[in-house]
Amino acid sequence: MRHIAVIGIGTGDPDHVTIEAVKALNSAHVLFLPDKGEEKAALADARRRVIAAHVTRMDQREQAFIVPRRQAAGVTYGESVDDWHAALARNHAQLIAEALGPEETGAFLVWGDPMLYDSTLRILDRVRATGLDFTLSVIPGITSLQLLTARHQIPLNGIGAPVTLTTGRRLAEDFPATPDTAVVMLDGEQAFLALEDLDAEIYWGAYLGMPQEIVLSGRLGEVREEIAARRAEARAMNGWIMDIYLLRRPRS
Amino acid sequence: MRHIAVIGIGTGDPDHVTIEAVKALNSAHVLFLPDKGEEKAALADARRRVIAAHVTRMDQREQAFIVPRRQAAGVTYGESVDDWHAALARNHAQLIAEALGPEETGAFLVWGDPMLYDSTLRILDRVRATGLDFTLSVIPGITSLQLLTARHQIPLNGIGAPVTLTTGRRLAEDFPATPDTAVVMLDGEQAFLALEDLDAEIYWGAYLGMPQEIVLSGRLGEVREEIAARRAEARAMNGWIMDIYLLRRPRS
Repeated sequence: MRHIAVIGIGTGDPDHVTIEAVKALNSAHVLFLPDKGEEKAALADARRRVIAAHVTRMDQREQAFIVPRRQAAGVTYGESVDDWHAALARNHAQLIAEALGPEETGAFLVWGDPMLYDSTLRILDRVRATGLDFTLSVIPGITSLQLLTARHQIPLNGIGAPVTLTTGRRLAEDFPATPDTAVVMLDGEQAFLALEDLDAEIYWGAYLGMPQEIVLSGRLGEVREEIAARRAEARAMNGWIMDIYLLRRPRS
Repeated sequence: MRHIAVIGIGTGDPDHVTIEAVKALNSAHVLFLPDKGEEKAALADARRRVIAAHVTRMDQREQAFIVPRRQAAGVTYGESVDDWHAALARNHAQLIAEALGPEETGAFLVWGDPMLYDSTLRILDRVRATGLDFTLSVIPGITSLQLLTARHQIPLNGIGAPVTLTTGRRLAEDFPATPDTAVVMLDGEQAFLALEDLDAEIYWGAYLGMPQEIVLSGRLGEVREEIAARRAEARAMNGWIMDIYLLRRPRS
């Protein structure tokens, strides 16, 4: 039967890859790689560096695939994501059936870890539902959340305290309900600027694991404008940005 | 100046270690290792396998240290942890000052990732406060949370949805307040048995990354007794257990 490996490759630094991921990369007959259109050239270059650092197998093939754009007009967010995943699943089913021999292994390389705000596993569930069968392995990778806390040299959680992981889209709802610590990913709107908790500590990082890495921290009320300015400046200079931040309530 | 590396070594499988962690392990003149009394022999053996698989440096020294027991009698949980960390910080300060030359690097090996329900970074903050200065690096490692989702081949979060990370101690308070997904660590009391959300899905794992690994999943109301039974049986057989689980509300 065909085998699919979904491999977490960390956030760009080839040293953050695990031994298991190196083995999985080399077990693959085919690497499925998104076409450049899907993402910024800098991200494609970072993925290329991970492959160059770790793939030693000589007979490996590469198969590019095009990622359709998500259509948001006239539908809810949930419907938009659902349609997009359906389109991706149709494409992936065709891709796997055509590019992978019946006993071969193909690999999808996922930034960070496949578990965290990534839909590759959901899309592969849908591929299976089309009737194309395969076995699956999931290889964990270091996430931007782990680099964020490593760079700031802080624990994620307060002692015995819970942590909320959420998105910029939900922050205004989720942070007021968070007893201690929240981590925010996928915030294209700088939702932290609208929070009223000015005494919270913020630990911010962008391009974590990449050469352009930036980290900043401080009391939200004091540093949020600086973070927004640094973010805008870096985004303009690089043409793209990926960032993440942790918010911690002051100790009562 | 002295340098301390706090290295996440994953959950027991030497293949889950990152290239960065392998380099950090070999950069250390001294590995600081908890004395066997602190933990079960099986855990000490797993750490020994990680070291054997990855340390190639011949002149590396090992320095055992004793971990005092946390005293819980007659104080609150917060006071108990505070006293315990203070005692650990005194011991660590002496350990580092005595075992590490003024220009040398020492390493603490942390299960999983130093950010997640681990206090090594907090204790080293206290060591610094005693006046013993050192530079610090933090090396992320694969956590049991990542292995749990990899083994069950599921995303951590629902689409665009938040996740709560919490402890067994807080579950009765935190799960009712969780909109979608909660992950529970450090649950010695099987708090999941007392939840009223019988339609939630539970994804459970024990000894993740180790040869004894067990995973189970299903509707909470259907599988929780089986999980409790398997857990008790495995604990009796192995003399110890480390487990983690994910709870997801049914889709409305």
